This record gives sequence, C-alpha cells and structure tokens, in this order.
Amino acid sequence: MRGDTPFIAGDWGTSNLRLWLCGADGTVLDRADGPGVAAVPGRAEAAFLDATAAWRAADGPLPALFCGMVGSTIGWVEAAYHPCPANVGSLASGLTRFTALGATMAIIPGLSTRNPQGAPDVMRGEETQILGALASHPDLGIGRRLLCLPGTHAKWVLLRDGTVVMFQTGFSGELFALLRGHSVLGRGTDGLLPQIGPAFIQGVQRSLTSAPLPHLLFEARSRQLLEGMSAQDALSFLSGLVIGADVVGGIAMAADGLDGPVTLVASPILTDAYAAALAATGRDTVALDGGELALAGLLSVRAAILS
Amino acid sequence: MRGDTPFIAGDWGTSNLRLWLCGADGTVLDRADGPGVAAVPGRAEAAFLDATAAWRAADGPLPALFCGMVGSTIGWVEAAYHPCPANVGSLASGLTRFTALGATMAIIPGLSTRNPQGAPDVMRGEETQILGALASHPDLGIGRRLLCLPGTHAKWVLLRDGTVVMFQTGFSGELFALLRGHSVLGRGTDGLLPQIGPAFIQGVQRSLTSAPLPHLLFEARSRQLLEGMSAQDALSFLSGLVIGADVVGGIAMAADGLDGPVTLVASPILTDAYAAALAATGRDTVALDGGELALAGLLSVRAAILS
Repeated sequence: MRGDTPFIAGDWGTSNLRLWLCGADGTVLDRADGPGVAAVPGRAEAAFLDATAAWRAADGPLPALFCGMVGSTIGWVEAAYHPCPANVGSLASGLTRFTALGATMAIIPGLSTRNPQGAPDVMRGEETQILGALASHPDLGIGRRLLCLPGTHAKWVLLRDGTVVMFQTGFSGELFALLRGHSVLGRGTDGLLPQIGPAFIQGVQRSLTSAPLPHLLFEARSRQLLEGMSAQDALSFLSGLVIGADVVGGIAMAADGLDGPVTLVASPILTDAYAAALAATGRDTVALDGGELALAGLLSVRAAILS
Repeated sequence: MRGDTPFIAGDWGTSNLRLWLCGADGTVLDRADGPGVAAVPGRAEAAFLDATAAWRAADGPLPALFCGMVGSTIGWVEAAYHPCPANVGSLASGLTRFTALGATMAIIPGLSTRNPQGAPDVMRGEETQILGALASHPDLGIGRRLLCLPGTHAKWVLLRDGTVVMFQTGFSGELFALLRGHSVLGRGTDGLLPQIGPAFIQGVQRSLTSAPLPHLLFEARSRQLLEGMSAQDALSFLSGLVIGADVVGGIAMAADGLDGPVTLVASPILTDAYAAALAATGRDTVALDGGELALAGLLSVRAAILS
C-alpha cells in the first residue's frame, strides 16, 4: 500500500460492511455500505466490487485495508489469528494480502490468546476497534488498562502500555438474545426492551453472589409467578443477570490493579448498561462510542504500515 | 375420592398426558396417553374426556387425581403452590377439587419455596415424583437427603425425614437446548448427541472453577477454531459446562452434610450424565428411573387421602 494514493478502509463483519474512501492523508472522502460476510458466502469479492464500483469508475483500482470477519472461514480470504501480546506494529506486520482487479487487498489479523480461564480465545474485528481507541485516546496506552467491548460476544481486554496482553470472551449478548427470544424466560416480552433501573440492578446484584447463572435464571420466571414482577421488569432483571455474570468474569482480570477506570467501547445503550453494572461492583467507567473506532483503528494500522 | 372404586391417576405435563386406570387397591388395570396441556389450551376437559372415553363407557364416571402442569395457568384448573416444608400429608390435604361429567377431579398442588439463593422458586409435577421416590425407596425418608431431578428445569431438592425442606431450580436443560439449537456454539452438531467422555468431563471441570458460565461458553467454539476440537467433542464439552454449572449450584445445598448419596431421578441418559458430573466433584449418586415415579407418587397421595 503506497502512501500517496486514495485507499479504502473497510470494517466487514458478519452482519455489515462499512467502507470509507480515504484520501492519501486519511481524510474520509466518501462512505458506502454493503452486506455482511454471512450474507454473501463465497461471493465476497463480487460484493466488494459492487459496493465500490462508483469509486473505481472515478479513481481506478483502489487498495483496501479490512478488519473483521472478512478474514474468517466464512469471509473472503482467511487471515490467521495473531497471538497476544499484540500492538499496532505487530498487527500491521501480520496482514494477509491478496489482489482483486489488480488492487492490493489487506486484512488485519484477528487475535488469539490464552484467556484468564486458561482456555484458547479469539476475536476478529474488535482488535481494530481497540487500536482505534488507543489512537483516539492516547492515555489508554499508558499503564495497565481494562477495556470491555460489549456485544454479541463481549470482549474484555487487558492492555499494558498500549499492548493487548490478553483478553476474554463473555458469551453474554448472544446468551441474552437466546433467553429473551427462545426461552420460557422471554415469554410476554415482545416489543419490550430491558431498562436500566431497579430490576436491572437487582439482576446484577444476584449475579454478584457466587451462585452459578443456571441457578439464577429461573428467578426471572418465578418472581413473575410468585412476586408479581412485571414482564418488563423480568426482562430487565434477566439482562442484569447476564450482564452481571459477564462483569463478574471481566473484573477478575483487574485483580492485579488497574490504571484508570474501565473503558467501555460500544453503542451508548450497551455502554450505559455495563456502566451501571460495573458501578454496582464499585468500578468507575468511561464510555467510548464504538461507531467510528474501527475506522480510527484501520487508519492507525495504515499509518504503521507506512511508517 | 372413595376407596372402594376404580379411579384414574394422571401425570399431565406441558408435553404429555399419561393416564393410568387403577383398581380400588391401586393396581394398574389399563394405560392411556393424550396431549400435553400446551397442546390443548382451554380444552383440557375435552382432551381428558376424549382420552378416557372407553374407560367411562365401561365403568361410568371415574374420579381422577392429577399432578403437573394441568394445575398451572395454562392447564385445566389452576392449583395453588404449596409452600415448603411439604410432605405427602400436607400435599394430600391441599388438593384442588372440581367436577367433570359428575366425577371428582383433584390436582396435587405444586410447591413453592424460598430457594438457597434467597429467591422464590416453584415446581409442578416433580413434587409427585419426589413422593413416588419416597414411597418406593423408604430409606430416602430418613435423615437429610439431596435429590436432583434433571430435566428442562432441573430441580435440586433437600429432604429431611421425608419432608421437602427447600428446593432450587437449575435452568440447565432448557439452556443447553437453546445453546445447542440456536447459538453459534451448536453449529455443525445436527444429528449429534453429547457423549459422556473426556470432553464432557473437561466441560464439567471448567465449570468447577469459579469462572461465570458466560466466560466459559465461548470455549466450545474457540477450542474448535484453535485446538481442532471436533464438533462432537464441542457438543459434549458444552453439555459438561452446563451440567457442571448446575451441579456446582446443587451441591452447595449439601454444605451442611448429607445422609447417603445424591439421588438422581430422571431417564438413564440424564442420570448417567449427572452421575458423571457429580463424581467429578467427589459425590456418590444413586439413580432412579423417573418413568413410573409419578404414578407411585399419585398412589401415595391417594393413600394419604384415604388414611
């Protein structure tokens, strides 16, 4: 990738493709969207060319730098996982490169680690949001920091001086969606959204006890049957149970001490919920909107390549 | 209910109706099956009369004694929950009675408790299996005993001298079914069944650590991605994780000591899995096939009514 031409930065996940046409200096010139990799199995190249046809018609072949599930087995070209510790330099040197219509494509590797539970763990895409958080908030690169990126598969990330030391996946977003959408615990909650209020905090507090989650979940039903809890409150309580359990596992990573508050990276609706749950454990938080951090991370990797 | 006429014993759950035509002395004369209450909303009486038409044609109106979800809000007539402590005498004195075609119908109450987590908890149907276990294995009525009835909503039950002191629901069966059938963790497992082997035990051992379940579940995927774990082993591992978490919560009820092993009540495929998981915690078990215990419990309640 040369430093004197326009290029495309792409955040290509399971459900969405977000593309930015950038000038040589990283200025965003245009945006485009397209289908997530799950929607275009075996047809990623065609989807990319389709989404960028107008740009190529104007500028000719454009190199592209991607992050996310585009590098998975269901993506375009499989990119290896980079083992932790990892930082922007090591990720920039581990790109998977190939060509499409004569232009260089590059995919940022995902990360692998042995997590605090001693098990293998992986992420794809969040590593670039982490780089974006570091690029846009340089203080995060100083000392020992804990980041949480809530989502379908929440990632808890330990940083030391800007390097990802290790991370841990909390299967919380998908678990809540399953319980809400497919279990007896979600009965009667159509159209409702969990609220951050007393019932949510009650659920968090239940998960702060040592009881295993399967022995707490049924409360979301029995409290309706015996205590008159409303379906709305039961849904909020259930969300609190699941997020609380996620938080219990996450803050265990901070046992050796942290510099600064826990940094939350997601949409405001999720960072608000995690902030409330972490507050119930006595932890301070700061929230970053994850929306543009993938772009910031892509740009920081490009800068590292060119430096 | 008089003691000198035939009667019907019925185990009417969400998914199945099992009926036994019994002689005055409790001898089973015939069997019949029908739809679970979920399949006949608002039409339970018609479903019952349909299933018993031949018996009534031969014998005239027959009284019936039921247990299970027939007494729930989605059943025939709502039966209150009986608060713990409870035994056969207190359940027999708490029947909900009504008439159908001139015959007396009676429903055994479910049980409510404040569980070891300090939360309200409920069961419907399992209380009658517990009475059946006590009737068929009188030693269970002596001292402090822990029963586990695995299933969609597993029940862990503390007995003292034949009285249900308290119980705890583990949301384990439904949770495993959700994860297996609807989550990314179940991908590629169609047609497979969890096996009780090293991968299952590995999952149990993971849950015996203090890590919250949401921070362990993703291992069922990452071990496939990074360690070459097979889909079959991942499914068994996932089962071990969920059952292991259930067992952690369950054996906490035995903290004050038990007389005898943990008694498992279910089908052999489930009691084998729980026996293996409990063995990993150093607990001995005995297994009872739950199939006929509901009938034994119904008969013991009838005997208590007549005594």
